[in-house]
Amino acid sequence: MRILVTGGAGFLGSRLARALLQRGTFDGRPIQALMLADLFPPAADLARDPRVQVQAGDLMAGLPALMTQHWDLVFHLASAVSAECEADFDLGLHANLDTTRRLLDACRAQAAAGGPVARLFFSSSVAVFGADASLPLPPVVRDDTLPAPQSSYGIHKFVCEQLVADYTRKGYIDGRSARLMTVSVRPGRPNGAASGFLSGMLREPLAGQPSNCPVPADTAVALSSPANTIAGILAVAEASRERLGGRLAVNLPALSTTAGEMLAALESLAGPAARALVSHEADAATARIVGGWPARFDAQRARQLGLQPDADFAAILRQYVADHPQAVTEPAARRRLGLDPG
Amino acid sequence: MRILVTGGAGFLGSRLARALLQRGTFDGRPIQALMLADLFPPAADLARDPRVQVQAGDLMAGLPALMTQHWDLVFHLASAVSAECEADFDLGLHANLDTTRRLLDACRAQAAAGGPVARLFFSSSVAVFGADASLPLPPVVRDDTLPAPQSSYGIHKFVCEQLVADYTRKGYIDGRSARLMTVSVRPGRPNGAASGFLSGMLREPLAGQPSNCPVPADTAVALSSPANTIAGILAVAEASRERLGGRLAVNLPALSTTAGEMLAALESLAGPAARALVSHEADAATARIVGGWPARFDAQRARQLGLQPDADFAAILRQYVADHPQAVTEPAARRRLGLDPG
Repeated sequence: MRILVTGGAGFLGSRLARALLQRGTFDGRPIQALMLADLFPPAADLARDPRVQVQAGDLMAGLPALMTQHWDLVFHLASAVSAECEADFDLGLHANLDTTRRLLDACRAQAAAGGPVARLFFSSSVAVFGADASLPLPPVVRDDTLPAPQSSYGIHKFVCEQLVADYTRKGYIDGRSARLMTVSVRPGRPNGAASGFLSGMLREPLAGQPSNCPVPADTAVALSSPANTIAGILAVAEASRERLGGRLAVNLPALSTTAGEMLAALESLAGPAARALVSHEADAATARIVGGWPARFDAQRARQLGLQPDADFAAILRQYVADHPQAVTEPAARRRLGLDPG
Repeated sequence: MRILVTGGAGFLGSRLARALLQRGTFDGRPIQALMLADLFPPAADLARDPRVQVQAGDLMAGLPALMTQHWDLVFHLASAVSAECEADFDLGLHANLDTTRRLLDACRAQAAAGGPVARLFFSSSVAVFGADASLPLPPVVRDDTLPAPQSSYGIHKFVCEQLVADYTRKGYIDGRSARLMTVSVRPGRPNGAASGFLSGMLREPLAGQPSNCPVPADTAVALSSPANTIAGILAVAEASRERLGGRLAVNLPALSTTAGEMLAALESLAGPAARALVSHEADAATARIVGGWPARFDAQRARQLGLQPDADFAAILRQYVADHPQAVTEPAARRRLGLDPG
């Protein structure tokens, strides 16, 4: 089993790569090669693994070189993010639409040349959903809810879902798409995304840094932990066509919670000192954007694949602490979380 | 008002061009120029009009020449048809997806260069709807029904709807898409389309020729006459953004009827001799394809634009006879229809 991961050095790509290497098999077959293609090289622990190959640079430009080898399975995670696509329309079309099209055609050419019909997982996004004047978002988003993307990023994701379905129908690939939910808690530095506070208002206080919650406490959001997101990607990628139940994109499960519940979990686990580092300066623009996102899902097809949302936000927070103990530096939090010898 | 019609020499394109020239205005502004771009030159009556310009050839190749002039309004009707796209995957991608993308970028460049922000009507299709394993088609298709295209043609149409919506959101064009229903009665020769009998089993008997109805009499279908289809195109193109109610594609209205009702209308209007020319050799493949098409629509947004389905199939048939009296040659039918002096 030879696997290509685009975006393989990113946050989710690296985590997926580690999960694949640790399992050692996919769909019962041993993993012989794992190519991590990204703008940047992957982390050292990944690059060291003898099964790992690396190709850094623009994916479209690098496709001919990548496709000199054949791939049984492709995880297509590479993407320009939402803010980039809004700022640079052509960049978004290039990175998300044209590159995906080129990748699909490369897989089609591989099969036409007698190589394997690649299984291809396409990483779509909850960003396909949005409210249109003619179509308010329903209170609960279901698998048959009509997307009305309100960003170029969401448009590109939804368009690529359609192309993946058609290349699959024609037998050129064995494609499947899953819509990833907002991932929290993301490690690392704050970014400019409207969703940034959904990680930052936990991560920064745990590191002893001030942070801000720009939305009212009762603002409802739908989240998935990194581990649950990876589990969803693997389950959709590994499912038979019969279990997938069609060619349409699968909504991954999401925990429905609120900003207030998230901060209550922070205080409960890390203590009042960490919680006190979170200010409440309202930001109307962020509140409007986040308020336009779907907050409740009935992810029936994902359930049929055995996928469940995270149990509660405290479980998500405990996962972050377990994965990144060195990122928790606020002294009282370290003591309460058992990270310092008592 | 300078208007470009792609596919302007086709059946609907020609009819649209005649309607525009006859009106003389669009949205209250006089029509100064009407460019008909198509693989083929338009009919002589159109080419003669001093307002008409003609460009024949592949649309993508011809775009640079077309865009040396500016256009206030673009009707994008040009398309490879369903059977062509299934037979030649690359042709379909070129003609339907890549050419539309290039046209959108050309309009965007026109606006960026200080020219008008073009209003653009995109001709989508009922072919976006289909049944997926995870998503059976509902009994009545509504404006918020999730499309699951089952053909490359349907995929391309649905994808282009998304691109039109995003270019519009960004202000590069003032785009709108409408999904055209199966048009009956089409004049001309039989073609290989699965829907061909929905025109042929009326048109051929009226011309004294045998024809076949390959589906059971109770097979339900959704149809629109040519005149009603053109009225829908013009109404969606002329509507203000407020009246359109959003950027999503509008389902045009459709008459829900059955194969049996269509043949009863034929007998009632044209007499038993014409009706007797229709045989009933079942074709399971055609019955399966046509049975998978939606047959009932609740076209709420179209209604809000004042659009209604044709009254009944007899009205559609009378329209065909009025538009193409010379195509009715079956003697008894001509007498009954008053086409021969009594």
